[in-house]
Amino acid sequence: MPKHKRTPPTLRPSVAKSRWGRIRLFALDVDGVLTDGTVQISSDGTEAKKFSILDGAGLVRLGRAGVQVAWISGRSSGATTVRASELKVPHLIQGRLDKLAAVQALAIQLNCGADEVCYMGDDDVDVPAIQWAGIGVAPANAIPAALAAADCVPVRAAGHGAVREICEHILAARDSKSRP
Amino acid sequence: MPKHKRTPPTLRPSVAKSRWGRIRLFALDVDGVLTDGTVQISSDGTEAKKFSILDGAGLVRLGRAGVQVAWISGRSSGATTVRASELKVPHLIQGRLDKLAAVQALAIQLNCGADEVCYMGDDDVDVPAIQWAGIGVAPANAIPAALAAADCVPVRAAGHGAVREICEHILAARDSKSRP
Amino acid sequence: MPKHKRTPPTLRPSVAKSRWGRIRLFALDVDGVLTDGTVQISSDGTEAKKFSILDGAGLVRLGRAGVQVAWISGRSSGATTVRASELKVPHLIQGRLDKLAAVQALAIQLNCGADEVCYMGDDDVDVPAIQWAGIGVAPANAIPAALAAADCVPVRAAGHGAVREICEHILAARDSKSRP
Amino acid sequence: MPKHKRTPPTLRPSVAKSRWGRIRLFALDVDGVLTDGTVQISSDGTEAKKFSILDGAGLVRLGRAGVQVAWISGRSSGATTVRASELKVPHLIQGRLDKLAAVQALAIQLNCGADEVCYMGDDDVDVPAIQWAGIGVAPANAIPAALAAADCVPVRAAGHGAVREICEHILAARDSKSRP
Repeated sequence: MPKHKRTPPTLRPSVAKSRWGRIRLFALDVDGVLTDGTVQISSDGTEAKKFSILDGAGLVRLGRAGVQVAWISGRSSGATTVRASELKVPHLIQGRLDKLAAVQALAIQLNCGADEVCYMGDDDVDVPAIQWAGIGVAPANAIPAALAAADCVPVRAAGHGAVREICEHILAARDSKSRP
Repeated sequence: MPKHKRTPPTLRPSVAKSRWGRIRLFALDVDGVLTDGTVQISSDGTEAKKFSILDGAGLVRLGRAGVQVAWISGRSSGATTVRASELKVPHLIQGRLDKLAAVQALAIQLNCGADEVCYMGDDDVDVPAIQWAGIGVAPANAIPAALAAADCVPVRAAGHGAVREICEHILAARDSKSRP
Repeated sequence: MPKHKRTPPTLRPSVAKSRWGRIRLFALDVDGVLTDGTVQISSDGTEAKKFSILDGAGLVRLGRAGVQVAWISGRSSGATTVRASELKVPHLIQGRLDKLAAVQALAIQLNCGADEVCYMGDDDVDVPAIQWAGIGVAPANAIPAALAAADCVPVRAAGHGAVREICEHILAARDSKSRP
Repeated sequence: MPKHKRTPPTLRPSVAKSRWGRIRLFALDVDGVLTDGTVQISSDGTEAKKFSILDGAGLVRLGRAGVQVAWISGRSSGATTVRASELKVPHLIQGRLDKLAAVQALAIQLNCGADEVCYMGDDDVDVPAIQWAGIGVAPANAIPAALAAADCVPVRAAGHGAVREICEHILAARDSKSRP
């Protein structure tokens, strides 16, 4: 699976529809991917995060279309648990810094090859999984190493529809496959 | 009612004052229209949203000027209920994804024709209502299909005065109508 | 007191230091001036607003320099009351839409002429006070009528240091006056 | 230790790797450095701040690499205490406006010279510490006097990775030092 991983984001060629059409598992990091990378800490110890309604609607549609969704976060957070539960995310893995091992174990369990997996992350710890996955994605605000490894950089910012864009790519490719 | 729906936002012709002057019902989606499309989730399960004071003041003035206001949201949210109650929004419809049916039922109840309705939304599910309404509006951050269907795209961002801009258009047209 | 009120913001001449040096009362609106104009509403009914630490430090210094500070808000808000109390704002007036009457009453009580008052606001209801005050200020995100009436538009955005900028103008003019 | 402190940010020469490699203590202000400078105040009196996950991960790595980290804030805040505790920040000093005295006392305690200290701050009260430290840093949104005093202005905004950038500079210089 050779990839043109070092192309700068602005010159990055778009990922072919045929590659999007193969995706059966969309695994993604949480902070900086489903959020803008900030966490709100209160003086009473509660923690809060902002999630995009557009992203949520996209992930729900993906699930209905038969694509597996997994959230894999290095940090454990009550806010993440609440949001994943609202969206009925089938695979929620928290407190795992070894993202590649986590996504590979899940792919084996779901009987997916690397080319059937899309992984999206923003930090150094996400780089091996971005490189391994058939389609690796980094949001525009990602750490340089994650951007360099990515096949695709969404136009919308993380926490403001970046994940929805990826859902649309996957759904559009599946729609055109299912047409006669 | 022919409309130039496919004009790109930046080249979109402005809506004539006479069309704004006909509006008797302003129906709008909540997330991504009255907010920036994010929802804040807390580790204790509470949910919060940010609303614009400028938008709120505009909607209150619209009500005083005799224009009906309706919020139609696909999601049910306690934060939306609290804000609608503060602003005394007369028609609050939550948990309805079929926006077109909801706005049409309300228009019949209020005895409004399509050309007397302004509808504002940001996602795919809003497109039929944006197309049906006399004036269809999408904020600049809307999903492409909503932008393509809209007659008007406010300059201010959703959650930061986009709704106020629409209120001002409606109020200005009514003011000039009521002058001798 | 003739003023060049209609100059567009980008071409607005700067206010002379001698005028800043006369200010003894800085009266300001809260939402959209000390905040970005949004209010966060929670499902449990609590309300929250974001205030700038830079603004707060500027207002405290103004008080120490002998300049009176007044917050005049059209809305009553617990979050505003908490923040005003933290900063020991001497004059907190909430629930008053007639901003001009409020600031004039306070000016009489403090024995200030209009040219000794700086007023900052962002919405239509602030326009008469912006026009009356010796120095009228509107943040860049203000409603057009407020911008048109203003003598000064800070570079920093409301809620992110716009108020601090005004404090610095007043303090710098007082410092140069007190030098021999 | 002569420094070119007056160079405007856009023309600022980058700090040499050898200077980053000497840093043994990274002392930083909190509001406007680890956050965007706003504090969220609730009607129930709780206070909240948004912190960047990227910044947090950078500071944790710095600690593991043997660099001391200190947070020095002019204000006392429960939200700051919670976040510092999560990240196990070894030196948390709150309610101190005399930042220079605080960082100098800590440097003596840790047996660091000025050239082994990096200090990052955004307001006037931070200027003496920015000037004294071997590497003085101000985020792009800092008050002009802090920007003028700084050797380095990160590309990322405060609260959105500005601190992580500084961590990366320090870590990269240590990595290249430890290579044969």
